[in-house]
Amino acid sequence: MGGDHGLSVTVPACIGALKRNPDLRLIMVGRSRDIQDRIGTNKDRFGDRLRIQQASEIVGMDEAPRLALRNKKNSSMRLAINAVKAGDAQACVSAGNTGALMAGARFVLKTLPGIDRPAIVGKIPSLRGHVHMLDLGANVDSPAYLLLQFAVMGSILVKYVDSNPSPSVGLLNIGVEDIKGNEVVKEASKLMRASNLNFQGYIEGDAIYTGDVDVIVCDGFDGNVSLKTSEGLAQFITQLMRKEFDSNLLTRMAGLIAIPVINRFRRRIDHRHYNGAAFVGLNGIVIKSHGSADVLAFRQAINEAVQQVRNQVPENIRVELADLMQGPGKPA
Amino acid sequence: MGGDHGLSVTVPACIGALKRNPDLRLIMVGRSRDIQDRIGTNKDRFGDRLRIQQASEIVGMDEAPRLALRNKKNSSMRLAINAVKAGDAQACVSAGNTGALMAGARFVLKTLPGIDRPAIVGKIPSLRGHVHMLDLGANVDSPAYLLLQFAVMGSILVKYVDSNPSPSVGLLNIGVEDIKGNEVVKEASKLMRASNLNFQGYIEGDAIYTGDVDVIVCDGFDGNVSLKTSEGLAQFITQLMRKEFDSNLLTRMAGLIAIPVINRFRRRIDHRHYNGAAFVGLNGIVIKSHGSADVLAFRQAINEAVQQVRNQVPENIRVELADLMQGPGKPA
Repeated sequence: MGGDHGLSVTVPACIGALKRNPDLRLIMVGRSRDIQDRIGTNKDRFGDRLRIQQASEIVGMDEAPRLALRNKKNSSMRLAINAVKAGDAQACVSAGNTGALMAGARFVLKTLPGIDRPAIVGKIPSLRGHVHMLDLGANVDSPAYLLLQFAVMGSILVKYVDSNPSPSVGLLNIGVEDIKGNEVVKEASKLMRASNLNFQGYIEGDAIYTGDVDVIVCDGFDGNVSLKTSEGLAQFITQLMRKEFDSNLLTRMAGLIAIPVINRFRRRIDHRHYNGAAFVGLNGIVIKSHGSADVLAFRQAINEAVQQVRNQVPENIRVELADLMQGPGKPA
Repeated sequence: MGGDHGLSVTVPACIGALKRNPDLRLIMVGRSRDIQDRIGTNKDRFGDRLRIQQASEIVGMDEAPRLALRNKKNSSMRLAINAVKAGDAQACVSAGNTGALMAGARFVLKTLPGIDRPAIVGKIPSLRGHVHMLDLGANVDSPAYLLLQFAVMGSILVKYVDSNPSPSVGLLNIGVEDIKGNEVVKEASKLMRASNLNFQGYIEGDAIYTGDVDVIVCDGFDGNVSLKTSEGLAQFITQLMRKEFDSNLLTRMAGLIAIPVINRFRRRIDHRHYNGAAFVGLNGIVIKSHGSADVLAFRQAINEAVQQVRNQVPENIRVELADLMQGPGKPA
């Protein structure tokens, strides 16, 4: 399951998730002795709801995806993906190396019929609740037909996970007028207009947080830049605010009084509640947790996997893809 | 000078700027009667430091840049750019249509020798003060050699405006490892490494706000997405915070006590203090104010123009360009 903090995060997160979801069963894949030591007496408590599977290797956070794929067939990551393929598990959750996880997932699970490349989709808080955005970094230089596939996958995901019969879709651009943007975005816009998607046209970066649309589609380079920019700005604002409240005795007192309000505000934008990006477009469910996830955040990633299993996201994408891709004028 | 609020913003901003800068002289280009009415008795106060130039046309905010360029030769925007070309003014400041301003500036002023396309550079607050980022939206699908030109222009700008002898340059990417990113970014990285720039390699979106480098280089699509994402997130956070402090009597009281601290914090990230993006790479200085700028923000854009004039930015780019472009091994 990996991540920057290893078992000190994943084990308590798994135990917490098992406590909260009586239906949940987990297989922890890794060095079984280390996992066993960490779990201790909790093992008995959950019976066969918590199993341990031995993995002799680990994929490093900086390892080249292709090398990991070729050389580490017994890594915890690979075995966890294999378990999904074999039907032993309904989803795989990992906080490890994103590139290696994606390469392994594509290689083992394969993409769904009609999908050329899987995408990474994330949930982002907005004024109206949240939006789903994809791709967040799996695909750079995506041509227009891939952006259409992202839009369709995002739309079907939101339809089931958020019980939203007709999710609105926006295409990320640098202006809302027709003449704005690059050729790929203009072509993708035409494809989306001709499809059965509830396509709302272009949106700009600031519209991510207004929640004007339910699904935001973009190339992985832009999605990643946007996401990381947001992470950086949120941290910057938090640090500045802390500094201002910490500058003298008076401001520290003001801070004490304002703490409950500020904490409530922080919880609203706490990225841990949005942890767990889904790889969509595969024959199986794979959820990527942030590498730096803490216990709460990793539990959220497990929860994201549970939601996808309950809502049979890959199966629904498989069934509804062709219908959404088609234009209104074409036969079903 | 345009913008969403027209003369109700630009006139008080000009008067404020004239008061603060005894060296400053301004030509207001627009419908002279309207300007005259707004200025009133202030006209006499500044003597020939405040002149008015009649313009019979105006470029609309949504007008297509090429049409504006062809059909509106007597627009205030075009006449203001012409004044720079003729040497009547040392800089042009506008809050109008970005595309039309860029098209007009390129057509009239032309790019500097060795520069193929001008870029839009903006100043962004960071933990260590501020960073300069370009391009923010003038060029989409920029090839690697353009990214190198942006890097060189940004570096020379910061050298003079911030008195920084060797500004550090980072290239925006979706990871810091060599294998990350698209082909253009990889190629640009090679060019920058081979140049005399103080090139620090790749940075990710979150590094914008840590201030790890002085100049951030990116394609205009990504720069614009990043900038707009930041604007959206900052507004989202402000609104959420206001809502939390406004939720009941207790939180409102906490808000009252925290107000001075929160206001000081807000001033630190107030985008108005960062208004005024420069078009670099032209034979002349052109500053673009945000369309929604208020008086303080527009005055800041004028101030940005003053800084560029004082530091002779275009002239310095012209002189130092070739030297920075060259690799360390090549003769000067």
